[in-house]
Amino acid sequence: MAGIVVRTIERAPREVIDGLAACGVATVHEAQGRTGLMAPRMRPIYAGARIAGSAVTISAPPGDNWMVHVAIEQLEEGDILVLAPTSACEDGYFGDLLATSAMARGCRGLVIDAGVRDVRDLTQMGFPVWSRCVHAQGTVKATLGSVNVPIVCAEALVNAGDVIVADDDGICVVPRADAAAVLEAARAREANEESKRQRLAAGELGLDMYDMRGKLAEMGLKYV
Amino acid sequence: MAGIVVRTIERAPREVIDGLAACGVATVHEAQGRTGLMAPRMRPIYAGARIAGSAVTISAPPGDNWMVHVAIEQLEEGDILVLAPTSACEDGYFGDLLATSAMARGCRGLVIDAGVRDVRDLTQMGFPVWSRCVHAQGTVKATLGSVNVPIVCAEALVNAGDVIVADDDGICVVPRADAAAVLEAARAREANEESKRQRLAAGELGLDMYDMRGKLAEMGLKYV
Amino acid sequence: MAGIVVRTIERAPREVIDGLAACGVATVHEAQGRTGLMAPRMRPIYAGARIAGSAVTISAPPGDNWMVHVAIEQLEEGDILVLAPTSACEDGYFGDLLATSAMARGCRGLVIDAGVRDVRDLTQMGFPVWSRCVHAQGTVKATLGSVNVPIVCAEALVNAGDVIVADDDGICVVPRADAAAVLEAARAREANEESKRQRLAAGELGLDMYDMRGKLAEMGLKYV
Amino acid sequence: MAGIVVRTIERAPREVIDGLAACGVATVHEAQGRTGLMAPRMRPIYAGARIAGSAVTISAPPGDNWMVHVAIEQLEEGDILVLAPTSACEDGYFGDLLATSAMARGCRGLVIDAGVRDVRDLTQMGFPVWSRCVHAQGTVKATLGSVNVPIVCAEALVNAGDVIVADDDGICVVPRADAAAVLEAARAREANEESKRQRLAAGELGLDMYDMRGKLAEMGLKYV
Amino acid sequence: MAGIVVRTIERAPREVIDGLAACGVATVHEAQGRTGLMAPRMRPIYAGARIAGSAVTISAPPGDNWMVHVAIEQLEEGDILVLAPTSACEDGYFGDLLATSAMARGCRGLVIDAGVRDVRDLTQMGFPVWSRCVHAQGTVKATLGSVNVPIVCAEALVNAGDVIVADDDGICVVPRADAAAVLEAARAREANEESKRQRLAAGELGLDMYDMRGKLAEMGLKYV
Amino acid sequence: MAGIVVRTIERAPREVIDGLAACGVATVHEAQGRTGLMAPRMRPIYAGARIAGSAVTISAPPGDNWMVHVAIEQLEEGDILVLAPTSACEDGYFGDLLATSAMARGCRGLVIDAGVRDVRDLTQMGFPVWSRCVHAQGTVKATLGSVNVPIVCAEALVNAGDVIVADDDGICVVPRADAAAVLEAARAREANEESKRQRLAAGELGLDMYDMRGKLAEMGLKYV
Repeated sequence: MAGIVVRTIERAPREVIDGLAACGVATVHEAQGRTGLMAPRMRPIYAGARIAGSAVTISAPPGDNWMVHVAIEQLEEGDILVLAPTSACEDGYFGDLLATSAMARGCRGLVIDAGVRDVRDLTQMGFPVWSRCVHAQGTVKATLGSVNVPIVCAEALVNAGDVIVADDDGICVVPRADAAAVLEAARAREANEESKRQRLAAGELGLDMYDMRGKLAEMGLKYV
Repeated sequence: MAGIVVRTIERAPREVIDGLAACGVATVHEAQGRTGLMAPRMRPIYAGARIAGSAVTISAPPGDNWMVHVAIEQLEEGDILVLAPTSACEDGYFGDLLATSAMARGCRGLVIDAGVRDVRDLTQMGFPVWSRCVHAQGTVKATLGSVNVPIVCAEALVNAGDVIVADDDGICVVPRADAAAVLEAARAREANEESKRQRLAAGELGLDMYDMRGKLAEMGLKYV
Repeated sequence: MAGIVVRTIERAPREVIDGLAACGVATVHEAQGRTGLMAPRMRPIYAGARIAGSAVTISAPPGDNWMVHVAIEQLEEGDILVLAPTSACEDGYFGDLLATSAMARGCRGLVIDAGVRDVRDLTQMGFPVWSRCVHAQGTVKATLGSVNVPIVCAEALVNAGDVIVADDDGICVVPRADAAAVLEAARAREANEESKRQRLAAGELGLDMYDMRGKLAEMGLKYV
Repeated sequence: MAGIVVRTIERAPREVIDGLAACGVATVHEAQGRTGLMAPRMRPIYAGARIAGSAVTISAPPGDNWMVHVAIEQLEEGDILVLAPTSACEDGYFGDLLATSAMARGCRGLVIDAGVRDVRDLTQMGFPVWSRCVHAQGTVKATLGSVNVPIVCAEALVNAGDVIVADDDGICVVPRADAAAVLEAARAREANEESKRQRLAAGELGLDMYDMRGKLAEMGLKYV
Repeated sequence: MAGIVVRTIERAPREVIDGLAACGVATVHEAQGRTGLMAPRMRPIYAGARIAGSAVTISAPPGDNWMVHVAIEQLEEGDILVLAPTSACEDGYFGDLLATSAMARGCRGLVIDAGVRDVRDLTQMGFPVWSRCVHAQGTVKATLGSVNVPIVCAEALVNAGDVIVADDDGICVVPRADAAAVLEAARAREANEESKRQRLAAGELGLDMYDMRGKLAEMGLKYV
Repeated sequence: MAGIVVRTIERAPREVIDGLAACGVATVHEAQGRTGLMAPRMRPIYAGARIAGSAVTISAPPGDNWMVHVAIEQLEEGDILVLAPTSACEDGYFGDLLATSAMARGCRGLVIDAGVRDVRDLTQMGFPVWSRCVHAQGTVKATLGSVNVPIVCAEALVNAGDVIVADDDGICVVPRADAAAVLEAARAREANEESKRQRLAAGELGLDMYDMRGKLAEMGLKYV
């Protein structure tokens, strides 16, 4: 069932996507009911990046990055490449040449449940990558995969056009159709957090602010 | 047996604790006979922090951070939170709001054999964390754990009030009652190391400085 | 069969070694036919170092660093220490004193499929290390190993005198006898990459630049 | 978004399901284009079981098996329970009491990306389980999850009613709508394999039987 | 602090120990409030063994089994050896000769957070072992450890004389002083489970038997 | 450098190979100075097999088993296939059809640092396999590897024609040229072990039999 490239995908509005980036992964993840998070084995190659974009998905055979070239043609300004190998693989599918090409088409970053290489160059180029590992091991171009089909990447389901939010805390997938509602919930959450932050900074305890003492006592908590 | 909060714990003298921080983990660990080290899966969220403090321990159910709120009330100036889940868990138990609250009470950092989130904020706040992983996955507040009971954290036993020393090399637990003696041994070790460092920098070999050649020959080492 | 120190090893020419360092791991690895790469569990203790040198190999028992002292005597200017334990071990075999001694003899760095400690000091000293982990756990000096015998380090075969190339992408082993030829191939590859980089940056697609469309169609790729 | 129980799910015809069981995981996986396989960390608690059934899915919080009780009410004869925790967890969610209850409702087995316990009893009862690990650590009943919603289990997407095929080789998910077609393809594959098996047993080489020599030579394979 | 052998340890009464063995790990673990369980990386070398005994503890350097010989002299009829290396190690510390010696002194089995070898012989001898792995890699006898000191084994604290219960579900540590009370609780739990088992086997749902429906509805569970 | 098949390899004498099988992995490994052992991640698909044979080596790309067909043609009676992927891979490279073909040519088993499938069939056929995992995920035939070149398999160096010894304890590689000498040493070791076993079974302590008490006291062991 490999060998499919879906050319036309729907994307969320740009301002919704950028709003989600500003909220960050932890807030967005909470705001959409704690779903869509990738596994913590995914780590950024450098600290400090915070992006969001529309997923262009790649299902690739182990050790074969041919489909990355195919996917790059499908990129639009503001997209993020998301690659899942069809079986676990740590090879370096992606390096500075592919990043150059992807950036030329407006790509904001890469999320890959496999390896990446040329990380010093990628860091200097400001092209953020979240990956399972860093590995110089290259790949071949011999077998077909698919582009813009649904994939499971680092234990999260990703459909092409879903909004990917990524920062130092990890990666969260927001279904395209939910993006606007999730943004609204995330912003409400942020507003709410600011007042809590000030009260906590002033020394108020969470036990009191969240009114937990009664419930804890009822559950049987004993102070000795 | 969960559901206990021990309110009163003994702590080591502040100047002993601060002395241990200055020595660092590797030296302290050697000085107390190579005991008390946590497993190397524990990593700092940013490089360069070196702290020591008295342990306020938390035993928490998987995916439930309710007891962190309870523990924060037990914090005194100079303490360090130490959390072990009752079974292996990578959830993000702790983020910037809890850090704000803990800092307001004088907490010096967190050691957690689970996940942490909001690491960009925590880094900007200068709140150091050593954790098993970074993960945006949140937790619930539904089940009791305990505070200031003995825990095994990352394969080390921690009693409330033990001195926790943490830096880029990892985390070492110094039993409260041994803290002064360990500090003395650590300082002696440091003094001794400085002269060795100078001799080695000048080109003297460890083989000669430590007088190893005879023992190696006796054990049968052959140069070919 | 432990207990052997080979005193005399052949090394590649200095200018070849330095040339390989300049090319970096990913390029060198490709240039020698994708062989000789260590496993991606090996990570640098700080970002940005890129070195090459002649391997002085150490086969050490688990938790015993005695042979590091023996190996340091065998170092020449421009060498790199490469240590593999005889069974998997995460102990910190190496710290700032050994680094001071190794640097005094011209050592360029350490590759160790085990743990390292004093990483803050090593970073300040500018002594680069690639390791399996960071761990303050020390070692003993009780059992013999060997120096400059062939070892398997992080799944790569290393003979004494082989050229080790290491950077943020990992570590590649170049057999001494192949070093000049690999350098030539690596430089050719670099020259070739620069023109590709410019074309890709200008927006040309890899699909066209590498003339892939026909082959993909022939393999059955379908655009839908 | 937790807290949902979908009561009515569609199932594939019983004879299709049983046909898929007879083909086994490796054949079914090939027959549906190498998709739908769970990760190899999933292992049977005893060797030799080979089952297929309709998935009743469970999304459960870490360390909380409340939803298993809810799911058991949704079981029909021939179903298989499939549980994915919302974050990685090794707790023993399931033991002999739950198995007794599930078997009373016709359940054929359990697939769980977490832990299981009472494995000696389960083995004696003939209730097959594929799990991430065996662990006596129990769970609580404090937080809601969902039943019969789509889940990602061991890196495979599972919708309620999908056909689960499991044996010593692992677990494969067949989308309900594809089940009949996949069975047909699997049987064709089996028929084809039998004749190959006989030719290979008689000493014919795969190189000849699959006519590979020309292609290998063309790719540049060299015999020396 | 290594180099200590504690000769005299207290043990729980034999009938209490044997009673705990009969209850099994999962029941004992529940009965003592879900504490004392070792990590699930510990696995039996063969299925079906279920033992309990008094812990004779060994703290051993990585790759060094000298202290096993020392510990064997401390064994009494009905004891279990429990070994934790001072840093993570997969070496095969124990084989058929040591098992022969331990059995001659009445030892019931071995729990080791490291490797074991000669597993075919051990299986034929009926000497059960729970270990982190099977590995033929041998060890040396060069460095001291300690016997009958407190250790952390597979993330559980073990004091000499504690009761170790081990079966296919894992290993549970029962503090010596609690053993009788835990046995009583475990037996009560077993009695209670039998009636539940019969009701569940007859088709009664856990939802009804445990009266969960009201609580689930109150928490917001929705059937759709 | 892929794409090479070495047709002619030297093998050790059959009676030496069979003698090594009879000694088993743990004894052979000790007899050759504790070298040549593969990592403990390699496990047999069923218990009880003990084999030795001459290595026919395969270096294969990740997810590509084409070279297995090529290697089978190179098999002689008594050989063992040894496969290492060029980067870490868990795919099932080998199943019952390939086993049928290999057995028809006298192959005694497979050692593979990757996955295997059809394990129920392989068990019934009595074809032993040691692998990194069991996984139904299939492979392609698109890229060249090499046969009978030196490989690193599970962290051990294997040259074609080396003697592979495998049993429940793991896999040991004996260099062809050393095989006769290693067999002699292994048999001497076995003879020596039998008398020790009898003395230990009679209750003599290792402390006395190996005369360890003086050395332990000298090292500072304290009985308290």
